[in-house]
Amino acid sequence: MNIAIVGATGNVGRKIIEVLEKKDFPIGNLYLAASSKSAGSKLKFKNKEIEVENLETFDFSKAKITFFSAGGKISEKYVPLAAKHSVVIDNSSYFRMDPDVPLIVPQVNSNDLKNIKKNIIANPNCSTAQLVIILKPLHDLFNIKRVVISTYQSTSGAGKAPMDELVEQTKLSLENKKIISKNFTKQIAFNAIPHIDMFVDDGYTKEEVKMVNETKKILDNKIELTATCVRIPVMVSHAESLNIEFVKPFNLEKIREVLNNADGCKVVDERKDGGYITPAEAEGKNETFISRIRKDNSNKNTINLWCVSDNLLRGAALNAVEIAEAYIKNK
Amino acid sequence: MNIAIVGATGNVGRKIIEVLEKKDFPIGNLYLAASSKSAGSKLKFKNKEIEVENLETFDFSKAKITFFSAGGKISEKYVPLAAKHSVVIDNSSYFRMDPDVPLIVPQVNSNDLKNIKKNIIANPNCSTAQLVIILKPLHDLFNIKRVVISTYQSTSGAGKAPMDELVEQTKLSLENKKIISKNFTKQIAFNAIPHIDMFVDDGYTKEEVKMVNETKKILDNKIELTATCVRIPVMVSHAESLNIEFVKPFNLEKIREVLNNADGCKVVDERKDGGYITPAEAEGKNETFISRIRKDNSNKNTINLWCVSDNLLRGAALNAVEIAEAYIKNK
Repeated sequence: MNIAIVGATGNVGRKIIEVLEKKDFPIGNLYLAASSKSAGSKLKFKNKEIEVENLETFDFSKAKITFFSAGGKISEKYVPLAAKHSVVIDNSSYFRMDPDVPLIVPQVNSNDLKNIKKNIIANPNCSTAQLVIILKPLHDLFNIKRVVISTYQSTSGAGKAPMDELVEQTKLSLENKKIISKNFTKQIAFNAIPHIDMFVDDGYTKEEVKMVNETKKILDNKIELTATCVRIPVMVSHAESLNIEFVKPFNLEKIREVLNNADGCKVVDERKDGGYITPAEAEGKNETFISRIRKDNSNKNTINLWCVSDNLLRGAALNAVEIAEAYIKNK
Repeated sequence: MNIAIVGATGNVGRKIIEVLEKKDFPIGNLYLAASSKSAGSKLKFKNKEIEVENLETFDFSKAKITFFSAGGKISEKYVPLAAKHSVVIDNSSYFRMDPDVPLIVPQVNSNDLKNIKKNIIANPNCSTAQLVIILKPLHDLFNIKRVVISTYQSTSGAGKAPMDELVEQTKLSLENKKIISKNFTKQIAFNAIPHIDMFVDDGYTKEEVKMVNETKKILDNKIELTATCVRIPVMVSHAESLNIEFVKPFNLEKIREVLNNADGCKVVDERKDGGYITPAEAEGKNETFISRIRKDNSNKNTINLWCVSDNLLRGAALNAVEIAEAYIKNK
């Protein structure tokens, strides 16, 4: 099966290539496309060098499945063109809330793949993907009423240039030199910025709104959620502090067991020094890790937990490739 | 009035000296004490050099007010000795929950200073101090029912050596060299550790339990709280993401106005790029800053907000000196 990747040279594009290779995905030819700026460069796939083609003149009829990971504006313009010839798995937020576009985390709602009206499948926001993969088994068990979320998100979620800016600013800060911010609104080195994506209505940011709306679309519209999204000086992996209220009384041992057995999840929760997972440790791992699971004594039927996942994998590339696998299996 | 500082060479001890000097506190003599390791070193106060005395042989009858900031074990042993001669303002957690020891944030409960039975006044935990100074005016207005807290805490809260470790690990990480953790259980550079202070019952850490219990003691035992405390790679200032549920219906404009006018608080909340405060910006400032105030649509009578404060000032040295001022005024 021929596959194409649009935005191949970006953080997520490169990860998709890596995941396809690791999974031994059944590929005929792999085509790579990017902006004219990156066209002509070469990327490795299974020991072969593949030249990156110019997106503007790319022939979408060459591929059966096309991954898009080049931002909302590129998706808005090129995904409808690509979808005439190919099934598109889109990483941008542009089509996610379209009722005719399924928004998929395969472990949660692969059933929704039965309803692909536009030849487009959307990949959720990175912080949403790791959230729903945890909430799903808990919702099945005890019926989730409400979730209060605070995130600790890495710079890789913003792209390659923001990651470089973290490194640059960190060096300048260690030398007591003046710091200038380009990719962030404020200094990110040795700091925390309570703002991801643009501000929208009511003082929320788009990232916070996405977490609420996408979770409802993927999992259950009846779940209430509220989020505060914060960027911290970490390279890769997002962490989330979750306060989860159930409709039914819960059993902590059952939660631990069900989360540990859930596809894509792993519980690391020893309640002692080091007995939990941090973002740096989750980098490069496929699992979403769950730690610090405990009863919240301030409210009925409520727990707290901490979860960490590689935002470029579960939150993007791995999830996109798993969508492709589920799509092939479903056909 | 003669003043003594035990733990004068530590992060907080040095800050107390700085605050006393800046405030032009009415001091006769200033005496400094520390462990035998630091005894003999000299610290500056108002252009004079003061020699640090050995705590083991220190004469507590020399001072009318003694600040302690040398950890729980030193306070356990020496505070009762000091309190025979001097009013002690203790930064450690050792006496905080003692019913005969008032736990004070002057802007919140200076009335409790009328009840000093043991000649000891306790200074709250850093993350609690900035929390209650915000909750107090809101509780007066709309009666707080429950608070869900996720913290973003700086390394200075752990001490000077942990701050140095963050710098060292950051340098090693930038050079791709192997990182060893001594003061933290895991790598802190470019990471986030969901663990502050020791693990106690039910999977909570002592820091999380302190936030709950101390807030209840200072503000109102009827307020329900739950906390997740996380260390992030920041030098100074703690941030907190708060979800606050009121008993009564609230008015967002009123909240903004009351918080901005509250003693020790400042609202910076423009709902646009950069229109909020980050930890690096709060360093060295006396105010607790409040940003990202918004209605939580997932629950009745509930808001989200983000607050930041210099943990060495409001969370420690400034609060300790303000306790001394309130004590003198009350006498």
